[in-house]
Amino acid sequence: MAGTDDKKQQQSAEKKKAAAEKKQQTAAKHQPGGKKKEVKKETGLGLTYKKAENFGEWYSEVVVNGEMIEYYDISGCYILRPWSMAIWETLQAFFDPEIKKMKIKNCYFPVFVSSTVLEKEKDHIEGFAPEVAWVTKSGKSDLEIPIAIRPTSETVMYPYYSKWIRGHRDLPLKLNQWCNVVRWEFSNPTPFIRSREFLWQEGHTAFATKEEADTEVLEILELYRRIYEEYLAVPVVKGKKSELEKFAGGLYTTSVEAFIPNTGRGIQGATSHCLGQNFAKMFEINYENEKGERAMVWQNSWAYSTRTIGVMVMVHGDDKGLVMPPKVSSVQVIVIPVPYKDADTQGILDACSATVNALVEAGIRAESDARDNYSPGWKYSQWEMKGVPLRIEIGPKDLANKQVRAVRRDTGAKIDIANAELVEEIKKLLDNIQQNLFDVAKQKRDECIQVIHTWEDFIEALNNKKMILAPWCDEKEVEEDVKARTKGETGAAKTLCSPFDQPELPEGTVCFASGKPAKKWSYWGRSY
Amino acid sequence: MAGTDDKKQQQSAEKKKAAAEKKQQTAAKHQPGGKKKEVKKETGLGLTYKKAENFGEWYSEVVVNGEMIEYYDISGCYILRPWSMAIWETLQAFFDPEIKKMKIKNCYFPVFVSSTVLEKEKDHIEGFAPEVAWVTKSGKSDLEIPIAIRPTSETVMYPYYSKWIRGHRDLPLKLNQWCNVVRWEFSNPTPFIRSREFLWQEGHTAFATKEEADTEVLEILELYRRIYEEYLAVPVVKGKKSELEKFAGGLYTTSVEAFIPNTGRGIQGATSHCLGQNFAKMFEINYENEKGERAMVWQNSWAYSTRTIGVMVMVHGDDKGLVMPPKVSSVQVIVIPVPYKDADTQGILDACSATVNALVEAGIRAESDARDNYSPGWKYSQWEMKGVPLRIEIGPKDLANKQVRAVRRDTGAKIDIANAELVEEIKKLLDNIQQNLFDVAKQKRDECIQVIHTWEDFIEALNNKKMILAPWCDEKEVEEDVKARTKGETGAAKTLCSPFDQPELPEGTVCFASGKPAKKWSYWGRSY
Repeated sequence: MAGTDDKKQQQSAEKKKAAAEKKQQTAAKHQPGGKKKEVKKETGLGLTYKKAENFGEWYSEVVVNGEMIEYYDISGCYILRPWSMAIWETLQAFFDPEIKKMKIKNCYFPVFVSSTVLEKEKDHIEGFAPEVAWVTKSGKSDLEIPIAIRPTSETVMYPYYSKWIRGHRDLPLKLNQWCNVVRWEFSNPTPFIRSREFLWQEGHTAFATKEEADTEVLEILELYRRIYEEYLAVPVVKGKKSELEKFAGGLYTTSVEAFIPNTGRGIQGATSHCLGQNFAKMFEINYENEKGERAMVWQNSWAYSTRTIGVMVMVHGDDKGLVMPPKVSSVQVIVIPVPYKDADTQGILDACSATVNALVEAGIRAESDARDNYSPGWKYSQWEMKGVPLRIEIGPKDLANKQVRAVRRDTGAKIDIANAELVEEIKKLLDNIQQNLFDVAKQKRDECIQVIHTWEDFIEALNNKKMILAPWCDEKEVEEDVKARTKGETGAAKTLCSPFDQPELPEGTVCFASGKPAKKWSYWGRSY
Repeated sequence: MAGTDDKKQQQSAEKKKAAAEKKQQTAAKHQPGGKKKEVKKETGLGLTYKKAENFGEWYSEVVVNGEMIEYYDISGCYILRPWSMAIWETLQAFFDPEIKKMKIKNCYFPVFVSSTVLEKEKDHIEGFAPEVAWVTKSGKSDLEIPIAIRPTSETVMYPYYSKWIRGHRDLPLKLNQWCNVVRWEFSNPTPFIRSREFLWQEGHTAFATKEEADTEVLEILELYRRIYEEYLAVPVVKGKKSELEKFAGGLYTTSVEAFIPNTGRGIQGATSHCLGQNFAKMFEINYENEKGERAMVWQNSWAYSTRTIGVMVMVHGDDKGLVMPPKVSSVQVIVIPVPYKDADTQGILDACSATVNALVEAGIRAESDARDNYSPGWKYSQWEMKGVPLRIEIGPKDLANKQVRAVRRDTGAKIDIANAELVEEIKKLLDNIQQNLFDVAKQKRDECIQVIHTWEDFIEALNNKKMILAPWCDEKEVEEDVKARTKGETGAAKTLCSPFDQPELPEGTVCFASGKPAKKWSYWGRSY
């Protein structure tokens, strides 16, 4: 849950954003032609805030100026512009075929759920009730009974699982849907990270045995790891959530956890839950097994959402704007002509087109920016703001030397490439950028990890914005106690996960918080 | 708009469905093991209703028994099961790359829209207001102002088009989104055809000139024609809607119109609208043109929805169940072992696997049904119900003769194919089935088209369930008059479209309804 400092940051960011917009509007009034003018193009470049100094404001600004997000007139809702939507589509194009290989099929269940069904599983609805949006009217008429908009679809789907699953041959039942869900949260709306409506996939599967369910939980989690690490170049930790942090109504929850060094906060990247047989009981999802007996199914549910994009922005972005990993950037290479007064402008433009064509033919997403009303320098800034991984500049000298100049977004390094080696070198560079973004992010994340053993060290590490790895007794009451004791301006600390990759736990090690014998290592920290 | 006979049919269908379900439940109670049993497998095969006799009931039954749809506990909402969702995905896989070639980009706007914005364009909101679903509560709190769920996104998007479009270089702006929309209709809910929530794509584009907008309207319409004719094997007429039937708030509407011979009703397949400058005025979407003057944009919007699937079912389905065109069927070939007592069962099963593997390798979507608890005959019926285009049977004789037997779903024809020619012949057969489904549907549709010149002939043709082509004066009042005069149990007649492909209109031809000089040929009929 969000801490109050986020809220403050956010409010402050929104205030400043509003002020900036007002300034723009005022500026606009002084332009010839009245109230509308090319505001964006004249004033939109460059960021007002620095990532290291005002992270919240920087984030709000970078997603807007990088043209990923437009703020919407309903608070907590955001417009996903093509620049971010293309990332979502790339992740879909990876994930969807992978789950199809696992024989999971897509379906679509209604966005609406009746209150009776929604409230069938008590723990589950307790977790979601305060955030449910209710439809009570159509046109001018009141509905007979209010209808909820899905916050997630367990209760939407499982009555039908009960109907469809009769015998052991109906198992496993493995469905997924790509859809929007609504959670009307009031705290701290943040684009991608915490919005009232978001896009996700949700998988819902039912098996005859716990073993099959357990196996799938981890297979899906591995796909989530790949989304973050291979596509978004964001290092994550795979692990299991604590009892306090697991999915409401489920048996256990696994997750991939990312970390934002600037704020010192963990962020849950995606979750793969084993629901056990709890929902099966509530919704009577049972079947006749091979021995002719009734048996209950084992269920999983798992989801990743557009939050992935926000984590990527937070991890890689810098004071010049977004930094896009090549694999998910809808433009990987932007080619910019750099004409000089007396130079062969047409020749330069032709070289730009030829370069783009050669790259596109090789399967690289390249475009040229040949607009004649902007200077090359202005274009450099704009494409840096949008985070395009590689810029190619072609000027008279490059033309003469039969080369292009490539500039990396991640390091700023400038590399001259002979035309003859263009495709090969650009491919190498893009691979290199993808890897470098991950390596740099991992190094920064790893520098934040701190192993502690005592409460004093825990508090110090927390104040130093660390991702804390601590020996823990794994008791719910102790986590509740830690939360209570760390509750303050910047939000309470909680477990992020117990990593699957456990360091050795020497006998006699005690819990940092309770002094009882430690059962496992767990990551702790403040979180989004 | 729906006629009352549909409503009756529908009510009757739902009543009978409920009765059938009750019967199943009653039957279930008598089974050992209590209330749950393998109902579907024992009683679900075969259809109770015949397409020619009880079309409405037949349709409700075939979409459920064919496993496309499950009825949902909120009226007018339906579950899209994998069997229908796969069709939607196939259509997306065609359409999405096509619009990307046209440089249209995907985005995502919120599902919510504030009442102020929704009501900004008067004609538009008048068209949608009675069907809008309103969110008024979150958790237990009342919202400050009610928020609408999008029935379509013109008013959601265009305030931002106003913001994003400043100069002529920002044009054209071409966005599309894949999403759900909600229209809380009370009349005649029908799976796919008329549901309270449905899936669609909606394209929204803005241009500097009317010419560009006009061109795009037709380019998109051609893609819609291809969806129906090339993928769903459903013949459609391209044309322009009348003033009375055009999109609320737009300039003109083009559509592809299908026809359901059994009910004698036209059905709007998909629409591509030129919105003109009306929304641009309301939402102040203007820009500075090359001469430095303010100018207003020209806009289009266009959409096709999951209705496409319903039209396909209605056109091709028969008394054995669904009939799926090979291009959109997630299983194109089902391979069924036909073991005999003393025969080499393992050899047969191996031959089935080998056949599936060979087909899959060649890119054909083939599966085998090796379940040992069903007879081959039962399996034939089930896969016929699901409409799989080709069935392959492999028995001892086939094994001996190194052949397989293929059975077409569309014609029932049985063809023996030598193993050596398997892939080649199956490919040919699938192409042939796709073409035949279209040809047969077109022939049936064409037989329903009747050219008339007088009111008497019009009424007779209408009663004979014809798709009527009539010379018309193209006056709004006359269409209103025709609607009033034909209003009855089975619904009023209206224009379907004026086909782009106009027959010759000899000078002196008069309107069938008003006797005034005819301006064009138009299709008329009852419709969904």
